[in-house]
Amino acid sequence: MDFAQVELRAVGRAHNDIVTPRDDYWADVRTEIAIDGRRFGADALAGLEDFSHLEVVFYFHLVNESRIVSGARHPRNREDWPKVGIFAQRGKNRPNRIGVSRCRLLSVNELTLTVAGLDVVDGTPILDIKPWMQEFGPQEKTTQPDWSREIMRVYYAAGGASGD
Amino acid sequence: MDFAQVELRAVGRAHNDIVTPRDDYWADVRTEIAIDGRRFGADALAGLEDFSHLEVVFYFHLVNESRIVSGARHPRNREDWPKVGIFAQRGKNRPNRIGVSRCRLLSVNELTLTVAGLDVVDGTPILDIKPWMQEFGPQEKTTQPDWSREIMRVYYAAGGASGD
Repeated sequence: MDFAQVELRAVGRAHNDIVTPRDDYWADVRTEIAIDGRRFGADALAGLEDFSHLEVVFYFHLVNESRIVSGARHPRNREDWPKVGIFAQRGKNRPNRIGVSRCRLLSVNELTLTVAGLDVVDGTPILDIKPWMQEFGPQEKTTQPDWSREIMRVYYAAGGASGD
Repeated sequence: MDFAQVELRAVGRAHNDIVTPRDDYWADVRTEIAIDGRRFGADALAGLEDFSHLEVVFYFHLVNESRIVSGARHPRNREDWPKVGIFAQRGKNRPNRIGVSRCRLLSVNELTLTVAGLDVVDGTPILDIKPWMQEFGPQEKTTQPDWSREIMRVYYAAGGASGD
């Protein structure tokens, strides 16, 4: 079986005042996403302002290759939480280092998007931007283990937003 | 400004009976995702079965580079829908050709995941698998334009699942 190699090029870059990776309190973080003006014009974003939320695909560029986990580990190294596989958690030290998150879209100005609640650090390469459509979320009730509820308790809470 | 080049390697591959790309009726499509056994052991998936839904990042490998849209176009070429930017729609002919979807997890068996409702064709390279946590979805009410409601009308409907 052949497992494809894929070459991507960031379509933009995130700018905010989060210099050091942090675990929690993303709600108030405001980020500007600058789309690459050499490859894209404002028409690439036409109509995006009609959506309240985006789905952003980004690259955990600060994760060193040597830190990537391919097996199991305790999320956030919390030994009171179960040891689960890297594909059963959302930690950044993952194969391919891809992050996917939803955020609120505040404004579109030429090639700059301003968003709130995006969990990225300053300088993060942006791989894709998609509009959030409600129908693309799970339509049934979802279930998840208790540790994942705990880890998310203040993840998207407000507070501590002004830098590190 | 520097826009990073990123090299990825598929972590697995999707197998189902959808040979030709199709627009709609994904609810009943059943897909097996085979994780690359040369790079991963079953521990990479440990605990995943405690989640009802996954978020899957994949590669639209059938899209030829020459078909990638970098500006605006009518979604599905429907001229009765507005011409919107490629980042304001979820069409597959997009820069970096990355797809992101949620699906139901039916079972985990060693390195094979069985899922339902994943909108991929047979052979699709899988770039990442994340557990779906309810908290990672928008927590506020989201808004979106009418055309996006129309395009999704039967996207995740049941029916027509047995191949093409």
